[in-house]
Amino acid sequence: MTESFVEIYDTTLRDGAQGEGLAYTVEDKLKIVRALDEFGVAYIEGGWPGANPKDVEFFERAKSLQLKNTRLAAFGSTRRANGIASDDAVVQGLLAAETPIVTIFGKSWDFHVDIAIKTTLEENLRMIADTVSHLNACGRRVFYDAEHFFDGFRANSEYALDSLNAAVQAGAETIILCDTNGGSLPEQVAETIALVRSRFPNARLGIHCHNDGELAVANTLAAVEAGVTHIQGVFNGYGERCGNANLCSVIPNLELKMGRQCLPPGKLKMLTHTSRYVNEVANLVPNERAAFVGRSAFAHKGGIHVSAVARAKETYEHIHPEDVGNETRVLISDQSGVSNIRFKADGLSEDFQKNPAAARDLLAQLKTLEHEGYQFEDAEASFQLLALSALGRRKKLFEPVEYRIWIGSSGDPEAIVRLKVGDEEVHTASLGVGPAHALDLALRKALLPHYPQITRFHLIDYKVRILDGEKATAAKTRVHVETSDGERSWNTVGVGENIIAATWQAIVESIEYGLQVNGQEIKNVMPQ
Amino acid sequence: MTESFVEIYDTTLRDGAQGEGLAYTVEDKLKIVRALDEFGVAYIEGGWPGANPKDVEFFERAKSLQLKNTRLAAFGSTRRANGIASDDAVVQGLLAAETPIVTIFGKSWDFHVDIAIKTTLEENLRMIADTVSHLNACGRRVFYDAEHFFDGFRANSEYALDSLNAAVQAGAETIILCDTNGGSLPEQVAETIALVRSRFPNARLGIHCHNDGELAVANTLAAVEAGVTHIQGVFNGYGERCGNANLCSVIPNLELKMGRQCLPPGKLKMLTHTSRYVNEVANLVPNERAAFVGRSAFAHKGGIHVSAVARAKETYEHIHPEDVGNETRVLISDQSGVSNIRFKADGLSEDFQKNPAAARDLLAQLKTLEHEGYQFEDAEASFQLLALSALGRRKKLFEPVEYRIWIGSSGDPEAIVRLKVGDEEVHTASLGVGPAHALDLALRKALLPHYPQITRFHLIDYKVRILDGEKATAAKTRVHVETSDGERSWNTVGVGENIIAATWQAIVESIEYGLQVNGQEIKNVMPQ
Repeated sequence: MTESFVEIYDTTLRDGAQGEGLAYTVEDKLKIVRALDEFGVAYIEGGWPGANPKDVEFFERAKSLQLKNTRLAAFGSTRRANGIASDDAVVQGLLAAETPIVTIFGKSWDFHVDIAIKTTLEENLRMIADTVSHLNACGRRVFYDAEHFFDGFRANSEYALDSLNAAVQAGAETIILCDTNGGSLPEQVAETIALVRSRFPNARLGIHCHNDGELAVANTLAAVEAGVTHIQGVFNGYGERCGNANLCSVIPNLELKMGRQCLPPGKLKMLTHTSRYVNEVANLVPNERAAFVGRSAFAHKGGIHVSAVARAKETYEHIHPEDVGNETRVLISDQSGVSNIRFKADGLSEDFQKNPAAARDLLAQLKTLEHEGYQFEDAEASFQLLALSALGRRKKLFEPVEYRIWIGSSGDPEAIVRLKVGDEEVHTASLGVGPAHALDLALRKALLPHYPQITRFHLIDYKVRILDGEKATAAKTRVHVETSDGERSWNTVGVGENIIAATWQAIVESIEYGLQVNGQEIKNVMPQ
Repeated sequence: MTESFVEIYDTTLRDGAQGEGLAYTVEDKLKIVRALDEFGVAYIEGGWPGANPKDVEFFERAKSLQLKNTRLAAFGSTRRANGIASDDAVVQGLLAAETPIVTIFGKSWDFHVDIAIKTTLEENLRMIADTVSHLNACGRRVFYDAEHFFDGFRANSEYALDSLNAAVQAGAETIILCDTNGGSLPEQVAETIALVRSRFPNARLGIHCHNDGELAVANTLAAVEAGVTHIQGVFNGYGERCGNANLCSVIPNLELKMGRQCLPPGKLKMLTHTSRYVNEVANLVPNERAAFVGRSAFAHKGGIHVSAVARAKETYEHIHPEDVGNETRVLISDQSGVSNIRFKADGLSEDFQKNPAAARDLLAQLKTLEHEGYQFEDAEASFQLLALSALGRRKKLFEPVEYRIWIGSSGDPEAIVRLKVGDEEVHTASLGVGPAHALDLALRKALLPHYPQITRFHLIDYKVRILDGEKATAAKTRVHVETSDGERSWNTVGVGENIIAATWQAIVESIEYGLQVNGQEIKNVMPQ
């Protein structure tokens, strides 16, 4: 614990779970706790015990976790108005979770005391003080979340400070100032914290920001500059409305740019992996443009940028991507040169260096395909298959012979496929909810006996782009398919006037690429 | 132009187009220009004329646009090292675009002069000065983008300032400081700008930020606090790597929180619509959590929040969502919803005012359909058909009975359709290059004898979006179809797990809408 240490309090499982589209199972929550412990956050807020049976079960099962770096916190409200803390159901639920830390939230904003919990300003202060004292007396470390602190401070600064004082005097270990509505500006946060610090010079202060102004990261950093040493946030910025402060951006900014320490040494390199793992468990579409950890975060497209990056990466990269476990990617587009090919053909660049004729052939083929409407910047797997072909190293794992589809306005679409696998011809069929689904299922059914690993592959995204709108429904179609094997994902592309033919091509390549990788034909897959 | 005015320079079509997965057609670019002009940004950077045939065609076609609020800028580099500006191909391309503004970028970072453009520090200054002077002499207003200014200033502040001085002395109207690698912190931006202002007290300064630290919005706001009055950014924050400063967050923060004016009065309410329209045209998965404009931005999930919001929306909302054209998502049947219906139902608003029950029915139906995945932001024609139905005024022009399609890996897809037109049943078939084409042709063939005006309708765009990627090829699909009759165009939407069923729905509605309009059933079509 150096002077510069800032403790990270992760609330991915509690406040993050308020985000639209998120619904963790208990197993999901335990997985995320293990991953974040390994990553090294100081605290994890696991949920609100008593709020629902799932959180009760989570805290019960969490008791047997062997955590190395992190401590669990249970979250809940202060006691009800005009009640007694020791008799309060919420408070009893918090104690039953048996976590070393209990975090409670209380009201700082006089307007909220009046309109939301409908009690007097004095009783609200007693609710805070009583609850903190009781939890302390029961042997818990108590963190106090001052809900709506910044709005409350703008409305009635004296009352907002009184509410903090109630928690401080009752023995709260850390006082967290919450920008609950997410509307504060960095300057406002910094000024307010300076005032709070002058009033409570000995209190440990924390910050909890929401992203409603797209400023949660900046507000969190401003708070640290102003003296806060405890940060609440969420992995990948999930959370209610626009989400909470994104720890995947807060942590590297603090460690790489502001000279603060948040994690055990060496852990920052796990950031990208941990971010993607949490996203996979949460089962959300990843934000490719995410700072530091996104797939596009160090992806270069413009010709000028690519050639400069090839000479010195710092020309267009603000940090070394390896420092956060990410990597440089070069996107193939119509300005590409032979050196791009080498840079891009991941795991094959040595082979191309030894075989410049193959690199030139591949480049010529790419230009032709791009002219036809193919785009490889988001289809690295199709590109890698072309690269293997150019080197004469693409194994023939199976050969599509024919497909047919029937679709009607009633009943499910039906697909029939014929393939060759080795000397054997496989002929099978499947229904599906749509033609792509039917084709996908039929293809898998045909290949499964020969390649059982196919069960791990899942199509996770499917995009269609019409290339020449003026040709109306006769226009060429480009289909992108993204497939995951649970750890990594890859993209393929298909093009044609018939959307089904383009889809078939992209699906066939997505399966083939997964099988080639499993057969070690390609040394690296782009990490998801 | 008040003291507090900050001009918005939109580069969605140029720097934004560097984003992964983005590939605008010329038609897309023209659509976005019209939408942003209507919204009221001061400047639009349309592209780099000469860099590729697409941008040349764009500027050629843009010459005939009648713009009300915005002025077009062409973007490019300074002349090459040791060349002559008037002979330089890039500079000639910029002039050929015939835009009132030309924006050129030059190098501020000594390291880049050396490693990227490989010339002397002195020649780099001459490249800047010559190019600005020549463009000025040719009657252009010149904006100067100081690429990598903040990195350059950290490395060699005197040289970075000298590079600005070259542009200022040569007559550049605005000097834009670019955080090209996106790694600066707000404090660094503010301090640097203060120094630049003291050196160039009379220059108009601008800011151009990238989001590599998730700080582009904060850096942009910090720059405005420090005295900058010109902001470059991108709608929805598209752009290379992590994207550019997101104008959808920058603008409302400035207007609603910082007392600055960026847009003509009353335009801020179009923010959400414009954001979603641009996203539809770009055909990207929308960011539901986006600040201000996301579908989740004012969506309340937690029980405590929902009940508090029901009592007073400011309990958990930092602004009034209507101020940016967005809405709270828990108040299903509030008045603003019904008045929204009246606002959206173009040409029918008087009818809805007379028939509030129909407005409420339509609202309820919309909520259900949106829950199923429909989105009417860019499907006004489907919305208008629903509105006609709610008013009991949708004429039954034809009734689809059945369709069937055969698709195979060889031969063209074949579609068979059965329709009722009046008492007559029409049964016909067509081949097509793809299933949508075959369906479209068969439908037209069936309707042509009864509605000859159908020959004027052309499908001009067709888009497909997968709604729930985690369901793989079984995911729900949303199809958008755009149709033109040569003068006007309209958009329809279809949703379903079967892409063909969704396509059929969108095509049928596109034809029906065109026929309803020709029959004067609807007074206005949304302008393209």
